[in-house]
Amino acid sequence: MKNVTRRQVLGPLGIVAGSCVLSSCLSKNLASVPGKEKKTDFPWAYTELDPDITAEKTYYDCEKGHCMYGVFAPVISQLAEEHGEPYKSFPVDMMRYGVGGTAGSGSLCGSLNGAAALIGLFTKTEEQMKQMVGELFLWYEQTELPVYVPNKPILDIEIPKSVSNSVLCHVSATMWCKVSGHKAFSKPQKERCKRLTADTAKKTVEILNSYLNDRFAPAYGLSQEVKECKSCHTKGSEKSDSRGRMNCSSCHFSLASNHP
Amino acid sequence: MKNVTRRQVLGPLGIVAGSCVLSSCLSKNLASVPGKEKKTDFPWAYTELDPDITAEKTYYDCEKGHCMYGVFAPVISQLAEEHGEPYKSFPVDMMRYGVGGTAGSGSLCGSLNGAAALIGLFTKTEEQMKQMVGELFLWYEQTELPVYVPNKPILDIEIPKSVSNSVLCHVSATMWCKVSGHKAFSKPQKERCKRLTADTAKKTVEILNSYLNDRFAPAYGLSQEVKECKSCHTKGSEKSDSRGRMNCSSCHFSLASNHP
Repeated sequence: MKNVTRRQVLGPLGIVAGSCVLSSCLSKNLASVPGKEKKTDFPWAYTELDPDITAEKTYYDCEKGHCMYGVFAPVISQLAEEHGEPYKSFPVDMMRYGVGGTAGSGSLCGSLNGAAALIGLFTKTEEQMKQMVGELFLWYEQTELPVYVPNKPILDIEIPKSVSNSVLCHVSATMWCKVSGHKAFSKPQKERCKRLTADTAKKTVEILNSYLNDRFAPAYGLSQEVKECKSCHTKGSEKSDSRGRMNCSSCHFSLASNHP
Repeated sequence: MKNVTRRQVLGPLGIVAGSCVLSSCLSKNLASVPGKEKKTDFPWAYTELDPDITAEKTYYDCEKGHCMYGVFAPVISQLAEEHGEPYKSFPVDMMRYGVGGTAGSGSLCGSLNGAAALIGLFTKTEEQMKQMVGELFLWYEQTELPVYVPNKPILDIEIPKSVSNSVLCHVSATMWCKVSGHKAFSKPQKERCKRLTADTAKKTVEILNSYLNDRFAPAYGLSQEVKECKSCHTKGSEKSDSRGRMNCSSCHFSLASNHP
């Protein structure tokens, strides 16, 4: 039996008894509300998925629609296989736009954009969403990746690991190129991104599963360096002239020599 | 009569006559395919919207779900009002995740993420999607914004304009703070972001309208500086160690003194 959080059952409906925790039960109750047949309430229910199976599906789905699609589509397709609608009708192909840090721009890593979109779909409050996405982004910045090794690799070579220090596609890719000696846009770089995307999908499902089971506890924190930067630059500080939680030094690398 | 491109009619179906250009016609044909009643084909049809009406809706919708939602939701709600499904059932609330450069991370500007998601939903090929998103991102980087002035401002003050030189939330916001003298997270900064988001929605609808009418022609190009950077760093160049189309100098500002 798969679990749905109390928030997800009670939140959007407000009429379902706490003992009714199956998503099929959720669907039936939604369908019985007059005039609500086609309009699905929010957030959508998430039921537990296997992180390793998801990672494998992601690795191969990257071939169909790249990184953002690679994280988003396998989660939705597994839920569609189990529950049907509304998952079945989600236009997952739209998520191809995240490729190469959003349409090739090199900004936000597409795998993270796809993960954040999933978390946005399954969470009710902004605070919950920010906690989960924040955890994922810090994990991505600070972890040696990729860890995932496919059983049947599309490109069967050893893929070195690197720490991105950034959530940005072009920074993450360049850091890996420096470590590995491979070129950007090369087959090894594309293979690295597929495996990294599989890692991101696995981590996303682990976070969603822990949230679902009321076991979510953030394990990653801002680095000491970022905390020091924020002490002068973020909300309520002396300068209060910036925002965000990105690693600072990967861009502001000249500060060491001329910053007070 | 609203237009749907030949691509959108002929692409996903391959069975509809060229003369059938209404999205209602598209829906009827989809519905008649056995077993396809609930699975919507891709891409979704876009019909012409008014850029100024969209900008106004966006400005006020930012109050409901912030920047990414502010661009995405009004386009879908207008299409839902005109055509019903599948637009009516799109879980637009998921797009709240784009707030503050994705869950407050300060990375990709949420208004751009919402715009790119719309373009991803309405375009068939990766090339078309990249052209339209590329145009929008360069416009955002290079234009003095915000231009939009609401008839009934939520915060009725004069909002200075600034050029972001970046698609990143925290860079865009900080550049505006420098020009305006206002703090990050202040009421004026939030008012600036609502108006900027209205501008982005307007530009997105203009781009989608021009694409729909086969009039799309990119007006913005990479700066000379970015072209010079790419001549050594992008695909096929000497170093081939990076990717993307972001403005370089807004982050790599120390290069002037120590770069060959």
